[in-house]
Amino acid sequence: MMPVAMPDLAKRDLVSIEDLSTAEILELFHHADEFRANLGDWSDLCRGAIMATLFFEPSTRTRLSFESAMLRLGGGVITAADEKNTSRSKGESLADTVRVVGGSYADILVVRHPEDGAARVAARYARVPVVNGGDGAHEHPTQTLCDLYTLWKEKGRLEGLEVVLCGDLRYSRTIHSFCYALARFGANIVTMPYPGFELPDYVLHRLRRNFGVQTAAASVADLPGIAGSSNAAAYLTASTPHQLALFTNLTNVEVNRIDAIYMTRAQRERHSGESTANYPRLSRTTLDAAAAKDARIMHPLPRVDEIDYDIDDDPRSIYFRQAELGVPMRMALMAFLLGRIQLRAARPAALSTSPGIVAGAGLRCRNERCITNNEGVRYLVRDFRLCESETPPVLACAYCEREVEARFVGDAASRSFHRYSAAEARQVRGEQRVYFESEAQALAAGFSPGVEGA
Amino acid sequence: MMPVAMPDLAKRDLVSIEDLSTAEILELFHHADEFRANLGDWSDLCRGAIMATLFFEPSTRTRLSFESAMLRLGGGVITAADEKNTSRSKGESLADTVRVVGGSYADILVVRHPEDGAARVAARYARVPVVNGGDGAHEHPTQTLCDLYTLWKEKGRLEGLEVVLCGDLRYSRTIHSFCYALARFGANIVTMPYPGFELPDYVLHRLRRNFGVQTAAASVADLPGIAGSSNAAAYLTASTPHQLALFTNLTNVEVNRIDAIYMTRAQRERHSGESTANYPRLSRTTLDAAAAKDARIMHPLPRVDEIDYDIDDDPRSIYFRQAELGVPMRMALMAFLLGRIQLRAARPAALSTSPGIVAGAGLRCRNERCITNNEGVRYLVRDFRLCESETPPVLACAYCEREVEARFVGDAASRSFHRYSAAEARQVRGEQRVYFESEAQALAAGFSPGVEGA
Amino acid sequence: MMPVAMPDLAKRDLVSIEDLSTAEILELFHHADEFRANLGDWSDLCRGAIMATLFFEPSTRTRLSFESAMLRLGGGVITAADEKNTSRSKGESLADTVRVVGGSYADILVVRHPEDGAARVAARYARVPVVNGGDGAHEHPTQTLCDLYTLWKEKGRLEGLEVVLCGDLRYSRTIHSFCYALARFGANIVTMPYPGFELPDYVLHRLRRNFGVQTAAASVADLPGIAGSSNAAAYLTASTPHQLALFTNLTNVEVNRIDAIYMTRAQRERHSGESTANYPRLSRTTLDAAAAKDARIMHPLPRVDEIDYDIDDDPRSIYFRQAELGVPMRMALMAFLLGRIQLRAARPAALSTSPGIVAGAGLRCRNERCITNNEGVRYLVRDFRLCESETPPVLACAYCEREVEARFVGDAASRSFHRYSAAEARQVRGEQRVYFESEAQALAAGFSPGVEGA
Repeated sequence: MMPVAMPDLAKRDLVSIEDLSTAEILELFHHADEFRANLGDWSDLCRGAIMATLFFEPSTRTRLSFESAMLRLGGGVITAADEKNTSRSKGESLADTVRVVGGSYADILVVRHPEDGAARVAARYARVPVVNGGDGAHEHPTQTLCDLYTLWKEKGRLEGLEVVLCGDLRYSRTIHSFCYALARFGANIVTMPYPGFELPDYVLHRLRRNFGVQTAAASVADLPGIAGSSNAAAYLTASTPHQLALFTNLTNVEVNRIDAIYMTRAQRERHSGESTANYPRLSRTTLDAAAAKDARIMHPLPRVDEIDYDIDDDPRSIYFRQAELGVPMRMALMAFLLGRIQLRAARPAALSTSPGIVAGAGLRCRNERCITNNEGVRYLVRDFRLCESETPPVLACAYCEREVEARFVGDAASRSFHRYSAAEARQVRGEQRVYFESEAQALAAGFSPGVEGA
Repeated sequence: MMPVAMPDLAKRDLVSIEDLSTAEILELFHHADEFRANLGDWSDLCRGAIMATLFFEPSTRTRLSFESAMLRLGGGVITAADEKNTSRSKGESLADTVRVVGGSYADILVVRHPEDGAARVAARYARVPVVNGGDGAHEHPTQTLCDLYTLWKEKGRLEGLEVVLCGDLRYSRTIHSFCYALARFGANIVTMPYPGFELPDYVLHRLRRNFGVQTAAASVADLPGIAGSSNAAAYLTASTPHQLALFTNLTNVEVNRIDAIYMTRAQRERHSGESTANYPRLSRTTLDAAAAKDARIMHPLPRVDEIDYDIDDDPRSIYFRQAELGVPMRMALMAFLLGRIQLRAARPAALSTSPGIVAGAGLRCRNERCITNNEGVRYLVRDFRLCESETPPVLACAYCEREVEARFVGDAASRSFHRYSAAEARQVRGEQRVYFESEAQALAAGFSPGVEGA
Repeated sequence: MMPVAMPDLAKRDLVSIEDLSTAEILELFHHADEFRANLGDWSDLCRGAIMATLFFEPSTRTRLSFESAMLRLGGGVITAADEKNTSRSKGESLADTVRVVGGSYADILVVRHPEDGAARVAARYARVPVVNGGDGAHEHPTQTLCDLYTLWKEKGRLEGLEVVLCGDLRYSRTIHSFCYALARFGANIVTMPYPGFELPDYVLHRLRRNFGVQTAAASVADLPGIAGSSNAAAYLTASTPHQLALFTNLTNVEVNRIDAIYMTRAQRERHSGESTANYPRLSRTTLDAAAAKDARIMHPLPRVDEIDYDIDDDPRSIYFRQAELGVPMRMALMAFLLGRIQLRAARPAALSTSPGIVAGAGLRCRNERCITNNEGVRYLVRDFRLCESETPPVLACAYCEREVEARFVGDAASRSFHRYSAAEARQVRGEQRVYFESEAQALAAGFSPGVEGA
């Protein structure tokens, strides 16, 4: 296992949507507006710069959007569109690939990879900025930027909007990044998942922890075609006191006016055989519902059958506009990361790409799709961040952000461990604390049970 | 089914070779000559423009020729070289793909697709110009432009040339587009098909209908290697009176001087198991024939075994020059469609991409490879054009151009139908006419037999 | 079989590392230094030029390195990244592909192909310069240029360096090209092959013949992790008298100071089921050896497991720098071949792409991976060069350079043949000599045994 070589701290990456501050995102929107005003006018801005698209999973749409953005900025593009069939078939690690391609080949990398947390690995090892083009079921932050930008342009604001998320909320990384961003900007989320495809708990925990999001049952006005398919509508709102005060019943919020319906396809490539019969289908009758009068219909595309073709021409259907706005939005992002435009806004207090505080020793990420349990086994040091220090401590994998409860705390000096709730556990100093999920894990790591309650 | 959203009528596409007028084609030849004089001099002409190549079927040659042309014009290129394995595997329709990529990603699209009529779908849905890079067995008009351009440069004219088409004339879309163009320019066609691979009837019908082409048996001078393999040589000539008067016997034309032999490979990827034993093979002995003295040997490439390598150096072998001329020819086309050069010539009276006159109701395209019977089933409205209104009416699919005879005519108002020859059928007014192939089809559409001969 | 059409003799190709003179290589190093000083400053040097990468075998790294180099020079790039699945699947020959793509599409071609000698075929048929991006197990000369450049920058010289080559020396084309170049520059080679994967005899013969390389057993100082895996260390040194005089025992050279260890992965894609258990593995303990104190660790990448990740940060590990230097090195090469920079140094006396002297008639290349025994069967004329004229004559395939002993010599005029050692054999004049490996081969070619010893 190698010590993680830290790249230039001055470089910026976009691994998670939280790598951009709220003010930076809004400033990028204004730059995107400027680029969009005449897409053909910017072919000198990034002249001499090269972007590499490293796609270990196929995605024409995302790749072409990035490549178009870079070309419209006057830069060059090199492409590895189906990496899983090339170097990787010879056994090369992602860390090696990004060190090579980010050496002299390219000045910025866009990485798509099937394993959760892969973009963070790329950002750590590459010398140049890395953009996450989608890593497993983890995040897809540029899609989120485009979605936010579209909604912001349509509605003139994000705060206080009522946004319905519909379909496969479990495996859609687009949805996860979008939730974090909506919460951050103060929009309210109504989840209408296809049964069995609810928002994962770790997403809900992160929403609660980072943005104080509270969850209530939701009664959504009738939306034929999508309402019937879900029996578990929930209302998620940031816990700003004055806002919640508007609702009479905090345990069941009635939603009668909808600003946007964000529909997603079933992410079949990440399912393990689940049926998707009766998957929701948005149609003319959905749009005819009173609650949808001013709704915008969004979809990250590609669609399969979940939106009828005959509403494509409805002015509320903005999924093709979403795709169209992706190019100027990505132009703004790339120009920023390449240092060709500067933002006045302050960066976030913490960047997701900085190393974890805790080198979690005995812990192993429980997410089987996490890169630490797959291609990274050979070379990655496990790395966890402490999210909550008590009842019991919660740590999140620094790569895929999946959380784990550490019910036992060890002392690296004495090689003994205790239940988290024991007074002895609290006395172990920060840098000596080693976290374990279970006694068995602590014992396997060579720690022995400490005397408690002395 | 959605109403077909009509794109900007001002935009020009190249779906069929008939989307360019004869005068426009000749004007493009002169532009191609100018580009060719120094290929490296045009890198500012299309600066800022982006071309997307969307290839749902592999073709390196055609794709690279377009990409080279665009780069030589100073434009940018984004490529989806094997689309059938990417978005499409997630179930996306061609209509959605071209709306996204033709949104802000690219300023012009080149589409290759295995289904007949696919390019027309792309042209209808995309906001930007679409070039047909080959759609199933339908057309491949830029190959035709290059072929015509080559022949025109070699022979100084097209009118009155004697052009032998040899090999697989059934599945070669190259051949079909080429036939229409040769007829239009007044060249005479000698077909020497490999048995079982004759020119399809619908191509012959279109030649007759659009260009007045008449067909006669042909006695071709001995051409060893290719003559023996075909027992069905035919002579196709536009019915200009003074021209046919040159032949003593209109039912059997003797061909003793040949201007070009256009050889094609067996299009095995579109065959269904037919044998191609004894496929014609052009060799030195063919070239030694007296009739071939001034012939040019053409081939759209790639060749397999149908032309011997040892005639590659013969000055009459121009297949590599054909490929070479493809780049300047495509430069001229792209610069024109992008509006960077203007043509003085008038456009064709009707563009193939305009919608059909007849919304053929009960009719279904009989071409099983037509996009309306494949990926378009989900979203395309069937659309037919009336080609001949009597004895009986003939309609052509607006996508793949396959013809169908409508032996029954319904009345949309009274919901009754009649045989086409009945006086009642003729009384149904244009916009109320609904066409059917059979009684069963009319009954299935809910029409009832009308009273005739009252 | 066609006569080989000779391209413009003025054009330069890089098929073998021997296509560049020693002085030219050193001059290119200085140009590479200049390019590297600011990679972003050269975007006008090759403006208007187009490079095509034709890869019939996957290789992201090499392809992206070339493409980055070309873009940084301001040129355009067209890519066929997986040609074996496109035109080639329709049966097109490499000769046809390069004639088309090297016609008007591109101004320089980079070709990677699985068959030995393929790059030479490409160079012969293309009108534009061809760069060998790796052809089977034959050569990979640009990798060698990058390796030499890296070593030259690290050590300030090449002459007299002690370079250990470790691992799969049999199938690694990188190693073969590198050996020829090291010998030429006067570096000494220590081979430490994984058992069964020794340097092929034809490489050793060529080293001896072209550079006077002598071989001795080597006693290498203990290098844990790699030394134990090899029982056949050999020392190869150019036979400069003053140099060998330094060693007391010419049959067993002791190597105690190593300048570079060049490690290679097992080239599994070219193996036929050989086990690679206990393949050498370079680790911290290797670097701790005294002999490795000033060694540089090199690897052409991608690595699999043969170098531990935990030495990546050691300043002696320069494999990522090797990759990084590949871009400026390739920029220098491309600018030279495109005629955008001129070299003052003289070219080599003979270029590998010139035709062979001997049209070896009855001989057939014994290398089953040679392109003459694979896709070239249809169209290539066999071509051999006479390497040694006596005891017995040795001829090398002009494509893959595999050698064959000609024990029989025929007379094209009398159609008789003799043993090579017979006086009659020597009397056959040069242009009438026909070489055979065996009597059977001579008889099969229609020659009859001649009378000897008269």
